[in-house]
Amino acid sequence: MRVSIVGVTGYSGLELIKILKRHPNAEVVSIHATKDIGKRLSDIYTYLKGVCDLTIEAFDSQVIMSKADLVFFATPSGIAKDLSADFVKMGFPVIDLSGDHRLPADLYEKWYQQSPASQSVLDQFVYGLSEFASLKGKTFVANPGCYATATELALIPLLQAGAVDRDSIIVDAKSGLTGAGKKLAESSHFVNVHDNYVTYKLNQHQHIPEIMQELKKADPHLDHIQFSTSLLPVNRGIVATLYCKLKATLSESDIRAIYEKSYADKPFIRLQDELPNLHQVIGSNITDIGFVYNERTQVLTVVTVIDNLVKGAAGQAVQNMNLMFGFQETAGLNLVPAYV
Amino acid sequence: MRVSIVGVTGYSGLELIKILKRHPNAEVVSIHATKDIGKRLSDIYTYLKGVCDLTIEAFDSQVIMSKADLVFFATPSGIAKDLSADFVKMGFPVIDLSGDHRLPADLYEKWYQQSPASQSVLDQFVYGLSEFASLKGKTFVANPGCYATATELALIPLLQAGAVDRDSIIVDAKSGLTGAGKKLAESSHFVNVHDNYVTYKLNQHQHIPEIMQELKKADPHLDHIQFSTSLLPVNRGIVATLYCKLKATLSESDIRAIYEKSYADKPFIRLQDELPNLHQVIGSNITDIGFVYNERTQVLTVVTVIDNLVKGAAGQAVQNMNLMFGFQETAGLNLVPAYV
Amino acid sequence: MRVSIVGVTGYSGLELIKILKRHPNAEVVSIHATKDIGKRLSDIYTYLKGVCDLTIEAFDSQVIMSKADLVFFATPSGIAKDLSADFVKMGFPVIDLSGDHRLPADLYEKWYQQSPASQSVLDQFVYGLSEFASLKGKTFVANPGCYATATELALIPLLQAGAVDRDSIIVDAKSGLTGAGKKLAESSHFVNVHDNYVTYKLNQHQHIPEIMQELKKADPHLDHIQFSTSLLPVNRGIVATLYCKLKATLSESDIRAIYEKSYADKPFIRLQDELPNLHQVIGSNITDIGFVYNERTQVLTVVTVIDNLVKGAAGQAVQNMNLMFGFQETAGLNLVPAYV
Amino acid sequence: MRVSIVGVTGYSGLELIKILKRHPNAEVVSIHATKDIGKRLSDIYTYLKGVCDLTIEAFDSQVIMSKADLVFFATPSGIAKDLSADFVKMGFPVIDLSGDHRLPADLYEKWYQQSPASQSVLDQFVYGLSEFASLKGKTFVANPGCYATATELALIPLLQAGAVDRDSIIVDAKSGLTGAGKKLAESSHFVNVHDNYVTYKLNQHQHIPEIMQELKKADPHLDHIQFSTSLLPVNRGIVATLYCKLKATLSESDIRAIYEKSYADKPFIRLQDELPNLHQVIGSNITDIGFVYNERTQVLTVVTVIDNLVKGAAGQAVQNMNLMFGFQETAGLNLVPAYV
Repeated sequence: MRVSIVGVTGYSGLELIKILKRHPNAEVVSIHATKDIGKRLSDIYTYLKGVCDLTIEAFDSQVIMSKADLVFFATPSGIAKDLSADFVKMGFPVIDLSGDHRLPADLYEKWYQQSPASQSVLDQFVYGLSEFASLKGKTFVANPGCYATATELALIPLLQAGAVDRDSIIVDAKSGLTGAGKKLAESSHFVNVHDNYVTYKLNQHQHIPEIMQELKKADPHLDHIQFSTSLLPVNRGIVATLYCKLKATLSESDIRAIYEKSYADKPFIRLQDELPNLHQVIGSNITDIGFVYNERTQVLTVVTVIDNLVKGAAGQAVQNMNLMFGFQETAGLNLVPAYV
Repeated sequence: MRVSIVGVTGYSGLELIKILKRHPNAEVVSIHATKDIGKRLSDIYTYLKGVCDLTIEAFDSQVIMSKADLVFFATPSGIAKDLSADFVKMGFPVIDLSGDHRLPADLYEKWYQQSPASQSVLDQFVYGLSEFASLKGKTFVANPGCYATATELALIPLLQAGAVDRDSIIVDAKSGLTGAGKKLAESSHFVNVHDNYVTYKLNQHQHIPEIMQELKKADPHLDHIQFSTSLLPVNRGIVATLYCKLKATLSESDIRAIYEKSYADKPFIRLQDELPNLHQVIGSNITDIGFVYNERTQVLTVVTVIDNLVKGAAGQAVQNMNLMFGFQETAGLNLVPAYV
Repeated sequence: MRVSIVGVTGYSGLELIKILKRHPNAEVVSIHATKDIGKRLSDIYTYLKGVCDLTIEAFDSQVIMSKADLVFFATPSGIAKDLSADFVKMGFPVIDLSGDHRLPADLYEKWYQQSPASQSVLDQFVYGLSEFASLKGKTFVANPGCYATATELALIPLLQAGAVDRDSIIVDAKSGLTGAGKKLAESSHFVNVHDNYVTYKLNQHQHIPEIMQELKKADPHLDHIQFSTSLLPVNRGIVATLYCKLKATLSESDIRAIYEKSYADKPFIRLQDELPNLHQVIGSNITDIGFVYNERTQVLTVVTVIDNLVKGAAGQAVQNMNLMFGFQETAGLNLVPAYV
Repeated sequence: MRVSIVGVTGYSGLELIKILKRHPNAEVVSIHATKDIGKRLSDIYTYLKGVCDLTIEAFDSQVIMSKADLVFFATPSGIAKDLSADFVKMGFPVIDLSGDHRLPADLYEKWYQQSPASQSVLDQFVYGLSEFASLKGKTFVANPGCYATATELALIPLLQAGAVDRDSIIVDAKSGLTGAGKKLAESSHFVNVHDNYVTYKLNQHQHIPEIMQELKKADPHLDHIQFSTSLLPVNRGIVATLYCKLKATLSESDIRAIYEKSYADKPFIRLQDELPNLHQVIGSNITDIGFVYNERTQVLTVVTVIDNLVKGAAGQAVQNMNLMFGFQETAGLNLVPAYV
């Protein structure tokens, strides 16, 4: 499997490089960006010396299609919708890590404030939440957002089981700074983040529509959720804390059974006995889920943690590639959590 | 005003030293602890050289009553309930920063798992949430907990106004590590906290009963809240994120009016236009409150931030002293947020 | 004393606001910046609500001279040299926190790569290292750089005493991120600083010439030092670790005597028995100095710590104002270290 | 290759688990500790669920020798010297990550203040600085300390080349907190480390004698170095900043040639063009070396960075295992730096 990466110098692109380096069935054959063309990646990111010494090339869909079997887009929003057109036309496999192919045209336009890809192209993309998508043999995959991944993995089993009071769902999600990308901004200046906790984009985060879209597949009558996003002073990680009221008759063991059923054969989902913390998953493709149920008030608290750059981006993209092409689901991804 | 501090070597005791150093009407005349007796405080905490060079003394209620006009207890739970007995008997002013005098005997025993002070003594203590307590002329004050302060200041105005669906209240509270005290524990080891976010004591934090007690004063029919506590990788600060459903007819400006009415003449409460972050209050006695209301779902999100060692402990204790003795409420407390 | 601040929105300008707020003899009467003119400072920095609600004005030297008795420049390098011209002409007091008036014209041009103020203007400025400068009655003061302050306070006493092997001086200095200013840059992006330690500008930091200039006043035969600068993942603070060989006959008590003599009556310098750490001074105008002498190898290690925004910038500027105008040296500056 | 790990619950033991998980030629067959015996490792460290579900056993040398081909000691100092006796007697391969077998008996006793292993046992151990040791076919290896590894890799080539003024060597070394182990202490409490920089054990760190021992192999006339150790507020990483005067005739390209010659065929040493930072190596077994030479003052500054738990402990131990048993040197160690 020969792969190309477009947008290699972003956090997700670099994480793809690191993961694919160890993949037994895949090899990166070309890398593309809009600047530093002609330089070796390891001349710019010297920590990659000896890890990836490929030269950065300008984007050229024909060259990619001649060299590779699959292209990853790890570009900011608004790029892949245009650059992927040639691949879609030719039926050449695409995994898009950006938000460009996750939503129908009207919702994309509203939440991303950019003109969308054509609806006919969008219709060809499958939303790749690995644990719930059917990807074998698919050609075009829209990789989920990081907040969306953590939130959907916590909620879909509960909604599928009809366990939740639909009007009660609150998600208090927190992210490390790599989730915000490399763009220089006051909000990512060290001094403003360190020793701080900043809540932003309340009910306005662009992952909300894709979350609602996927949750509605599990429960078509769901109308809304409350979704809060905050920045933690860490580099990596997403913590999604979910609160919801459950139907009266449920017990803690029912909830456990619901999750166990959904994730029985899923290699990257672990149901923990305690509420998980970030350390448990950083550096890995694992999603840890823990919960506490208050039977008196019927409030269920679920904490889901992922590494935003792995399960929330590059790791899930490789997991999806594995599923699309029939490799072992964990190939290249037996990443052990770094813990410390 | 001459004051003594018992438990001077804890975080709250040291913060009292720093604040009282600048108080125009108060002077620390004796400091007490259980170890390092006979040493100067500044020999142990060399950063206090020239700031406080008093010698640490063993606790002796008679000596304190002979030297001072007021005693602060900044001791861990389970100490002040015994050591304050002599002062109470003699009507000597006490401000207890610990949890020993906040709850009725039965609740204290249940949540702190220690034998309580006698109910007759407990009855003489006033719960000192400065903005709502009537402290002028009072002799015995139980200073609120840090999580409790942030939570109560967010909720009391809403409950007093009858604005909240009582079954809907969720508080997702976060604290810096000084809130956990100086005791050595795995949970406060640097490696376990740094780059992490740990949710603990879900629905089991010992501040819950004092919060319920105070909220019920505002709304006697309130039965329960969901209360989550997590550790942020910072030294100081509490963020309390409150979610609740409001009564259908309310608008954003109604909510603003409710808060403005409650805090019109309160020098340390600021109603902000944006959701506040931790930086805005650290180093000061200020409580910043911001909110976002979703009229469609009727979910109100309120973010309240305080410095846990100032408004959440020593600062509020000094504010309470000021109120008890008729000093200017802000005396010694015109602390400017450090921001960075 | 009425003061104006030019460049109020930088870290040093805001720190001046906070310090002067408590000064018994000074009041900020106007604040100036190049953007956000017409807005209240507390509308931009909401943490200053109630602390400083002045409106930001465009710079106008005539207005400042009509309203104020002194102007602080807290501007980036390259601004004060031009904007201060009118004040110098009129003999109106100026304290410049930037690097514009610390060096002779040729050195400024070389190290700052900008055209300098005229040499005749530069000659009128006194370099304001408070503990060694003679400032009473002076009108124009060039406030020292933060690295320079920590380094000079460690070295000048040793050089004055003729204790040091001149060819042996190595300074390994570390700074928090506020030292790098607010400018957005990859080097101050949270992700690049957090969990990292970056050494930069080795032997090329622009504070080197002012350090050499001041050290040569203490020892005209000094020719060079090795000066390294690194970024610590903290917001505030400078640690200057000095290594030097001493003349053979000296003992540890001689070194102590040298420092004690230099700093006997200096209210902000503390000679500690242990090597100091950053926590001991953050939030204060204090410089802590500690040392270890290895008699066998004759290597002296001195660790000096300051808060870069206080003693390294705004605090020393106010200390200099106090000295210039005959106020108590500590007026407005009895800041207690925050410690935690 | 079947291996046992004694002291599995420390940072180095857990890192061994993670690294060996991916080793193509090795399998962990038993894990040993002094507490939690009978529990699964993944019940205590839930982040290892599915990664290592082995049960912790009490130490038993006979059992280990019956099950495994090699034993790693990842114990605190003072344990392996006793527990390894049986293995040494039987000629069973041992890699000791602790300090117990690095020094001759008298130096161990002096610096570790414990009774040493017998000199005859100590004589059978080889000091395993992978790049300079000759390990093929060896049975007993003393793995170097983390500070020692970084320092020796910077200095040995220079000393071997006779390039350095022997009286001028200063090492200003910094470490993350995992280097200090898991023991609870005030010095590792989050509040004391965060936002701080603490210099400790100046000239007294127990790695000094092993550094001197190894440096003297390169230059028998070397008498002393200045060695400073400080704690950085990060979890992982060592930065060793070396200052030394070089012989007059050397140029920057000579120095580069010296390092290139020493490390030409060493897969884990990278000579960088810029001074390296911690991010470049964390998570990997790589040592990055960069330098700046000041020809005027003849001061060479070398910055060496490693991950203290990988190249400074478990990674180098596995590298040594590979060398002892003739596996590929990089087997199991193609760890990519995590960067962020």
